[in-house]
Amino acid sequence: MFLSNRRAVLVGFAASWTLAAAPGLAAPTDPLPSWNTGPAKTAITAYVGKVTGPGPDFVPPAERIAVFDNDGTLWAEQPIYFQFAFAMERIGQMVAKDPSLRQKPAFAAIADRDQAAMAKLSEKDLVEAVFAVQIGLTTREYQAVAKAWLDQARHPRFHMPYTALTYQPQLELLAYLRAYGFKTYIVSGGEVQFMRTFAEQVYGVPPEQVIGTSMTTKFELREGKGVLVAQPALASMDDGPGKPANIDLHIGRAPLVAVGNSDGDLEMLQYSASSQRPNLQILIHHDDGIREYAYDRQSKIGKLDKALDEAGARGWTVVSMKSDWKTVFAAKP
Amino acid sequence: MFLSNRRAVLVGFAASWTLAAAPGLAAPTDPLPSWNTGPAKTAITAYVGKVTGPGPDFVPPAERIAVFDNDGTLWAEQPIYFQFAFAMERIGQMVAKDPSLRQKPAFAAIADRDQAAMAKLSEKDLVEAVFAVQIGLTTREYQAVAKAWLDQARHPRFHMPYTALTYQPQLELLAYLRAYGFKTYIVSGGEVQFMRTFAEQVYGVPPEQVIGTSMTTKFELREGKGVLVAQPALASMDDGPGKPANIDLHIGRAPLVAVGNSDGDLEMLQYSASSQRPNLQILIHHDDGIREYAYDRQSKIGKLDKALDEAGARGWTVVSMKSDWKTVFAAKP
Repeated sequence: MFLSNRRAVLVGFAASWTLAAAPGLAAPTDPLPSWNTGPAKTAITAYVGKVTGPGPDFVPPAERIAVFDNDGTLWAEQPIYFQFAFAMERIGQMVAKDPSLRQKPAFAAIADRDQAAMAKLSEKDLVEAVFAVQIGLTTREYQAVAKAWLDQARHPRFHMPYTALTYQPQLELLAYLRAYGFKTYIVSGGEVQFMRTFAEQVYGVPPEQVIGTSMTTKFELREGKGVLVAQPALASMDDGPGKPANIDLHIGRAPLVAVGNSDGDLEMLQYSASSQRPNLQILIHHDDGIREYAYDRQSKIGKLDKALDEAGARGWTVVSMKSDWKTVFAAKP
Repeated sequence: MFLSNRRAVLVGFAASWTLAAAPGLAAPTDPLPSWNTGPAKTAITAYVGKVTGPGPDFVPPAERIAVFDNDGTLWAEQPIYFQFAFAMERIGQMVAKDPSLRQKPAFAAIADRDQAAMAKLSEKDLVEAVFAVQIGLTTREYQAVAKAWLDQARHPRFHMPYTALTYQPQLELLAYLRAYGFKTYIVSGGEVQFMRTFAEQVYGVPPEQVIGTSMTTKFELREGKGVLVAQPALASMDDGPGKPANIDLHIGRAPLVAVGNSDGDLEMLQYSASSQRPNLQILIHHDDGIREYAYDRQSKIGKLDKALDEAGARGWTVVSMKSDWKTVFAAKP
């Protein structure tokens, strides 16, 4: 359902683009139909017009880089990061198969869904548990497991596939930026190979434009074929200051457009704001408890506090999900 | 000089492409004019025709990924890696400015050009010295220093800028693959930010398609601007098994075409050969001591031993610089 919706949007967008390019015909269709008219939408279209049209602010296409956080920015992140939901289910299966894994307190707590014990786990324990599900697997094996989970798992409140809980206005924004020559990247705290299982199909973002937290891998020949096997060591935590560091490593240019929703995106937005070219920073503010979730400064997941202050101080664009978005999800509940 | 040469090649190539696409006109110009007719050139054009034309071997454009090593594959690497030449000169300047740096034996040996002392340094000492030149600098500061060096440095034998010692047949191969929808990447043991100072201008490879050895960096705000500062710790050594690991991290697909020249490229070629799609592995064999350098199994730099055996066993394409290349360098000595 959400996929056919998405196709409809893209076809609609392509049509509007054709009309817009043909003066004298009918008025162009709105390329961001799920965005209400208001300061956020105006800031976006004015910026894109400015850097892609003739004039002193024109930016060559090669420098048009846009980076998007994923959790809470492109799809929902409540009540827990979707990748955590995957890891918890997977750990339950692993412990059922090999009870000796219960020796790790985090594994036992997760397998038993013991809320009290889980609340006591350190962040290190949790991260270790999340990544444990891929250690020893090749990248392709791990992605097959993740894809199988995504295909059948349902969100506890909306009872839909997690990939249906992507934000319709953001799918339009990604397509709009690409139509104007921007290269769109995902730069997320989520694990890179997990995100690549759906990013191309759902967002139109190819694997080489997905940057995320990563495990170290080891090259091995298995039956004569070269494979990469995940090792029990984190390579890079793509969160907070890790985001601009990975952008510098993977992309090598400061992004002109940066879109996030939490304090974990603050440094990425600051880095984008430091570009010598005209640039645009966007914060998605989760203020719609009816259609989605309402949370910001005190939230355990997706905390938005310092970045909200910085947005106010520096004039960044804050998107109210409640008032700026006509539709929230790519699929209707 | 080499740049105007390169422009001429690209213009010539664009013209040939137009002609090739217009049946009934003059015979198409050769897109690889610096390659002699022979098994290597035939293997390349047959492969590209097979995966881009209609038929069972057709590969969608999104999967057309080609990876190239840099030192010894796209430009020369003798008598020492060009980045080492840069680091040695830079360390001389650093020691002259701050004599306390002489306390590190590697720094004193390099600053004094003391061949006997340098021969005794461990690989770790050398690598540490090479990377010392960027520690504490922001990425942009480091790139400005590297670019200034590249602009004035001359190769000891050919007395030309190092960027003129790029291989003309390889510039043509890069352009040829791109014209057929391949995304061309550099995957090199060289440091990533150093290579990005010239890769776009010289090879037409944008920063986001350059993968290399990297230092960890730290995000800082300096006068309100976000910058990345190189730290005294290696993030990733992009050599040997590190190459497929970085390809898996940065690109997320096995490359269909892999081009290298040394044992440091073996795993990258094996990984490409493991793709489920038709694929092509190319080894550049330095067998032309007159126009360039002749070295392989016993060489200290660019040793080609195991990979040459593997090429023989697996039918990879071995390019003889002597007989397959009409011209070697982008600029004439």
